[in-house]
Amino acid sequence: MSTTAQNQGETVTPATPAADTAGVIALLERGRTLATPVLRAAVDRLASPMDTVAAYHFGWIDAQGRPAAGDGGKAVRPALALLSAEVAGQAPEVGVPGAVAVELVHNFSLLHDDLMDGDEQRRHRDTVWKVHGPAQAILVGDALFALAGEILLELGTVEAGRATRRLTSATRKLIDGQAQDISYEHRERVTVAECLEMEGNKTGALLACAASIGAVLGGADDRTADTLERYGYHLGLAFQAVDDLLGIWGDPDATGKQTWSDLRQRKKSLPVVAALDAGGEASERLARLLAADAKKTEAEFADFDEEEFAARAALIEQAGGRDWTSQEARRQHATAVAALDQVEMEDRVRAQLVALADFVVVRER
Amino acid sequence: MSTTAQNQGETVTPATPAADTAGVIALLERGRTLATPVLRAAVDRLASPMDTVAAYHFGWIDAQGRPAAGDGGKAVRPALALLSAEVAGQAPEVGVPGAVAVELVHNFSLLHDDLMDGDEQRRHRDTVWKVHGPAQAILVGDALFALAGEILLELGTVEAGRATRRLTSATRKLIDGQAQDISYEHRERVTVAECLEMEGNKTGALLACAASIGAVLGGADDRTADTLERYGYHLGLAFQAVDDLLGIWGDPDATGKQTWSDLRQRKKSLPVVAALDAGGEASERLARLLAADAKKTEAEFADFDEEEFAARAALIEQAGGRDWTSQEARRQHATAVAALDQVEMEDRVRAQLVALADFVVVRER
Repeated sequence: MSTTAQNQGETVTPATPAADTAGVIALLERGRTLATPVLRAAVDRLASPMDTVAAYHFGWIDAQGRPAAGDGGKAVRPALALLSAEVAGQAPEVGVPGAVAVELVHNFSLLHDDLMDGDEQRRHRDTVWKVHGPAQAILVGDALFALAGEILLELGTVEAGRATRRLTSATRKLIDGQAQDISYEHRERVTVAECLEMEGNKTGALLACAASIGAVLGGADDRTADTLERYGYHLGLAFQAVDDLLGIWGDPDATGKQTWSDLRQRKKSLPVVAALDAGGEASERLARLLAADAKKTEAEFADFDEEEFAARAALIEQAGGRDWTSQEARRQHATAVAALDQVEMEDRVRAQLVALADFVVVRER
Repeated sequence: MSTTAQNQGETVTPATPAADTAGVIALLERGRTLATPVLRAAVDRLASPMDTVAAYHFGWIDAQGRPAAGDGGKAVRPALALLSAEVAGQAPEVGVPGAVAVELVHNFSLLHDDLMDGDEQRRHRDTVWKVHGPAQAILVGDALFALAGEILLELGTVEAGRATRRLTSATRKLIDGQAQDISYEHRERVTVAECLEMEGNKTGALLACAASIGAVLGGADDRTADTLERYGYHLGLAFQAVDDLLGIWGDPDATGKQTWSDLRQRKKSLPVVAALDAGGEASERLARLLAADAKKTEAEFADFDEEEFAARAALIEQAGGRDWTSQEARRQHATAVAALDQVEMEDRVRAQLVALADFVVVRER
């Protein structure tokens, strides 16, 4: 498997080949260091037992309430929000309430989506609804969403009002995307365009908000914010395309997911949809196999062995789904980076936004 | 039963005995007439199938999607929001976005609470999760919450930012109240103070917001808004006390609920909690009965006949729980009305706010 993951790293290497990994790691670390204490203080405002449930979700404590050094995720969003403040010529700290609000909304959606989708694992741990029950997953999700608005609006500035409006609109798109995702599950065929629209809503909208919210809080005008949103939106689509590749061909040791994870979940992700759309012999054989799979029960499907998933992955690759998705990641990456030319900013800040975009498409987890 | 309901109407008659029913009905009707078209337009923004699910929830269509003339509830909140704009010397229309935002938050909480509580009926109809499934109840609830912020923030004014901040803070209290409600279900004893705190969060906070949001949108200062919130908060507690009375002794034809509804659900509502707190023989007999009830399964409990619930209701009454709750409704009503003296407003507007408060405590449904 790890060879496969290596291959993929090559497949999606962007135009800028030598991504500045050390620089990006420092940026992600800065986002975590500045945002996490404020995020924890916000979560501490929640009434018991919601504070504990949220702390479990964020990985700060384990299911027994003992402190844990959880995997808080890649933290691309906070890093973006801080850089975004710097685009507006402000200190990165100006973006912190935005970073925290975006993280709160992101985690609200994870809590609710895991429950709606029946997902039992997230970041190598049982999901909140598995540990604390569905009611707490709903309630704490609601509380994090409300907290996001509270954190921004208590700044009491006109800029905070504008930032909250953008965050609210991104959240509506997030919800639209989840509605589409659910409805697609019940459909036999989904087009590439529909899949991209759904991924733009589910992933693009909130990254767009992260990439602009710091600038908005720093007093940037609407044109600047809209352009930064465009960068973030296409970065989100590139991110998701890579996620979809990792969901099939990723190295389980790196991703923390099972082999062929998305195939096991019968997800209509980009490589699958692109392969089905491509036509030709492999595409048609894949379509027949997946149509038969769709009729199987969860239990029958769970009995599949590695070879059966490997066969489906091979057909997706033969039909061109893997290549198309890699190219799509590069196209979205290029569109994102091009948007940055439309905004005045320090060269250092621009270079860091580009490095972050490079990182997103070469990552292996 | 209808005699019982009559009795209760008398028990909670407020200091102002002749409530201006016709005037209040006109106020409620004005709120519905002005707010509903805007509410419907807001819900129409939701992507399919969320728009349909929301329309079902609001009673605008039936489960088959056919138009329905649903029971949209009493519409006290929209009426309050419009009067609130008039307190600030503005036209009632200025309060409309506030009325709509508050209704959206209220219905977000109903969708999620019904699912968390497993309630299968609301306003004489199957709840959304029963008809459209739990995922849609979560998703559409989330969407209504997001829509509430959107409706206010797209006004783009400083006042709208302040209104959204108050609405967000009310929503956090709503969520705290639901968390308390859930945790109390698992406890043997709840104090009157805890019950009042929970009801203040679940009912008082959003009525407080409804009573102030129109004024905030109309440019009122924080002191005026805080005072109107105090009126609305205590009005909410009075409202809930009456609801708790109707939940036990209400006329099913008027309330649309089963006889002894709250007793069937083993709710620790105010009359129950007050009776248990009172001490004395009836209180102790009630405590023993309820402790035994708590050990019964849903099925065993569902086998109870009318007489068994009537016996529990009689003990609550003998222990003073019914009288105490009636008096509490009057106390909260008096505190609400007294708050109005702290704010300058037209005599007509003040009289209407008082009439609305009177209506809340004499209503039979």
